[in-house]
Amino acid sequence: MFEADAIHQHIDEHLNEHIAKIQEYVRQPSVSGEDRGMHECAELLLSHLQRLGCAEAELVETPEHPCIWAYYDAGAQKTIVNHGYYDVQPVEDEAWTHPPFAAELVEMPPFKSVLVGRGSFNSKGSYRAWLNALESIIAVHGNLPVNIMFTIDGQQEVGSPHFPSFIRRYEDRLRTADAVLTPTPSQEADGTVHMFLGVKGTAFFEIECSGKAWGKGPQDYDISGGTKAFVDSPAWRMIHALASMTSEDGNTVLIDGFYENAVPPSEEDMELVEKLVESFDDAPWKEQCGVKRWMDDASGRELIMRYLFGATLNIDGIWGGDIGPARKSVVPHTVRAKLDARLVPNMGFTEIVNKVRAHLDKLGYTDIQFAQVTGYEWAKTSASEPVVQAVLDVYRRCGIEPAVWPNWCHSLPLYLFAGDPLHLPVCRGGLGHGGRPHSPDEYLVIEGNDRVAGLARAEKSFVDILHSYASA
Amino acid sequence: MFEADAIHQHIDEHLNEHIAKIQEYVRQPSVSGEDRGMHECAELLLSHLQRLGCAEAELVETPEHPCIWAYYDAGAQKTIVNHGYYDVQPVEDEAWTHPPFAAELVEMPPFKSVLVGRGSFNSKGSYRAWLNALESIIAVHGNLPVNIMFTIDGQQEVGSPHFPSFIRRYEDRLRTADAVLTPTPSQEADGTVHMFLGVKGTAFFEIECSGKAWGKGPQDYDISGGTKAFVDSPAWRMIHALASMTSEDGNTVLIDGFYENAVPPSEEDMELVEKLVESFDDAPWKEQCGVKRWMDDASGRELIMRYLFGATLNIDGIWGGDIGPARKSVVPHTVRAKLDARLVPNMGFTEIVNKVRAHLDKLGYTDIQFAQVTGYEWAKTSASEPVVQAVLDVYRRCGIEPAVWPNWCHSLPLYLFAGDPLHLPVCRGGLGHGGRPHSPDEYLVIEGNDRVAGLARAEKSFVDILHSYASA
Repeated sequence: MFEADAIHQHIDEHLNEHIAKIQEYVRQPSVSGEDRGMHECAELLLSHLQRLGCAEAELVETPEHPCIWAYYDAGAQKTIVNHGYYDVQPVEDEAWTHPPFAAELVEMPPFKSVLVGRGSFNSKGSYRAWLNALESIIAVHGNLPVNIMFTIDGQQEVGSPHFPSFIRRYEDRLRTADAVLTPTPSQEADGTVHMFLGVKGTAFFEIECSGKAWGKGPQDYDISGGTKAFVDSPAWRMIHALASMTSEDGNTVLIDGFYENAVPPSEEDMELVEKLVESFDDAPWKEQCGVKRWMDDASGRELIMRYLFGATLNIDGIWGGDIGPARKSVVPHTVRAKLDARLVPNMGFTEIVNKVRAHLDKLGYTDIQFAQVTGYEWAKTSASEPVVQAVLDVYRRCGIEPAVWPNWCHSLPLYLFAGDPLHLPVCRGGLGHGGRPHSPDEYLVIEGNDRVAGLARAEKSFVDILHSYASA
Repeated sequence: MFEADAIHQHIDEHLNEHIAKIQEYVRQPSVSGEDRGMHECAELLLSHLQRLGCAEAELVETPEHPCIWAYYDAGAQKTIVNHGYYDVQPVEDEAWTHPPFAAELVEMPPFKSVLVGRGSFNSKGSYRAWLNALESIIAVHGNLPVNIMFTIDGQQEVGSPHFPSFIRRYEDRLRTADAVLTPTPSQEADGTVHMFLGVKGTAFFEIECSGKAWGKGPQDYDISGGTKAFVDSPAWRMIHALASMTSEDGNTVLIDGFYENAVPPSEEDMELVEKLVESFDDAPWKEQCGVKRWMDDASGRELIMRYLFGATLNIDGIWGGDIGPARKSVVPHTVRAKLDARLVPNMGFTEIVNKVRAHLDKLGYTDIQFAQVTGYEWAKTSASEPVVQAVLDVYRRCGIEPAVWPNWCHSLPLYLFAGDPLHLPVCRGGLGHGGRPHSPDEYLVIEGNDRVAGLARAEKSFVDILHSYASA
């Protein structure tokens, strides 16, 4: 017998403690891309999992930042894999209203209290709320209703370079699991819920155009701009190489075969799309993205289709030459750009990197060099899976009919679970709300309103989801 | 009677003092673009001019950094205008072997002693050497052989925004002058001398492509890269806007009418070119530019023609989005680029900026905004001018037959003197050598060799040039 009410009451009675635990975790910076606070944060999370009562709990060292493996043995019939990550995106050059690692509780209309901080929502604060829920279950019930394998990445925000080998290491254990389940705050600012049954694959890479590799233009340093009359420019070369990759509006990729392996949406996909169209409102998206007009002024079904099935090539950043405040006339010797591609079924990560390389080679840009290549594959779970139905059940009991999306516009390396060889169904969900991931003033709602669950209700929903799946 | 030998001897006897004065001046940073040390440097130079015996010497305040006006009244028949500037380019992000403001004397093969520092050659060290020469003349002779109007810019390296109004202020005085003469070390590393009778005009501007101005894409901050599937990208927009401006090799400007006012070289120009071709060797240029191959593998006459008469559009720098060491997947809300155009007769600075603007407008890039627009016009002096002949005369007496170039690939606002309304002939020249302007380890030769004049011989040549012009 799962004592839901008693557990809910325990959450209410220990809410301040729960908030303090989130603050402690968010205040420990863990910027993987800058190697800032990573080991400290891993140790902190490990100690949380040990205190939870995991029979196994260990840092798993990698060539960079550690992953974490932990196993809670409930002696239960069902076993879930819980997928998390403890790293966050950098904050440099961002204009935060509140310090990004202070985890301050502030009013942010329409919410009376949110916790502001890098990782408050994506994903440290959300994840610690999940651990709070587990602690309350154990405090009341003495045990969990399912066994849990915790698989925690330390470099999700930089493309998870070592997570695949970590997962391979525990492959035999993970084969025995039934599903991947990651309870997390999933309400929009207006209280609606979107469930995402898939993720896009991604390919990250830097390209560098340098006089050195080209054999033309300035070789080792930037030279005076007056020489442009007789010296080639790696900067113009980079501009034209990049321009060759897309249509003039930047929205259609012109690389040979880029889209050729994208498969049309399935019947289930299109059924879900038709349902989505009925109640779709893009206003909250506009608010959250800080965008006034969508690409091609798309709306309704068209916007949904792009969101779900659009494969992209994006410039994350570009820099070279004189980028300081002063004016300095130079022919730059090097220009670099960071790009990422987002991939839908069945586009492959390595395939796409190779196609970009082939495109550059075909146009004679053989000297343009790739660096920092990383990425992963897309993943997809059917709406009919019991773990998905269990989460839907909890929403519906709360009077929420979620919008079920067959894919997500963002990327997570879920293919490691959903793809070969494990083929586990993967589901995320829960009440609660946070916003501005990867942006200034990222937040997690602490005190909710009549539409959005506050932290306590969010944690309770995590409890209910676990119960729903265990008893299904 | 001009006592040349005695003055030369005075230079030899006071060389260490002269070096110390150069060091004092170079060690005072004066980075106009970063507002670093500007007023201190202006005061320092002013004090030098006062000590020289200028009857008038004053800082002339501008909305940014002061210019300097000084007048040395020798009671002579002829009056020259001396044009200088006391600011230098930034050093940030440059890899210097010696600290850029230490003015260290070091060995730099093939030279036993050079003074290394930002501005050592361009132009503070060189300019202080000229003042050293004047001090020695006055020390020996009690007076100078010509009257000198010193017109000194504080923002040459950022496009001289306030120099034109400074010159206008002294227009009536400058009308009474006979020529502009700026003695400066002009030997190459192999001892050869190049005289440049013109300068190109220049247009500097920044362009900014932002979601805000566009009304599309991210408005106020960078947003997650996954949104590229349905959000427009100001970064791709900037790439395509820039790509539209040149041919694929970056070397032909495709902006309507960009070249239309460029006039063909004159007869005198082509006579000078034919002479240049005879002895032209590009090896020292390659060494100085750190370039292996010229544009289109040009050589000889073709290379000279591009150098002299090539009008260009150059990307000085470009930056936007994630340019940090970490990987951050974002759709950038803003990308900026700094560009400069170099202009030959009769291309106008304002004309070219307007044409770039019209080009962007024609293609629909009306939202791309211009900032930091500044620049100036080309200038040209005939080889037949007495001031040019006076300088040539000194070279020839030293056994040097200079290569006379009807134009220069670089820019200086000499049009203020050579153009309307003053129409003064303008000439620069002298022995001595320095290198790497705008680049790390910029240097001025202190101890010469059998081909290149050291500091003492350079200062002596400045003395001789003044004498040659005074007595012509």
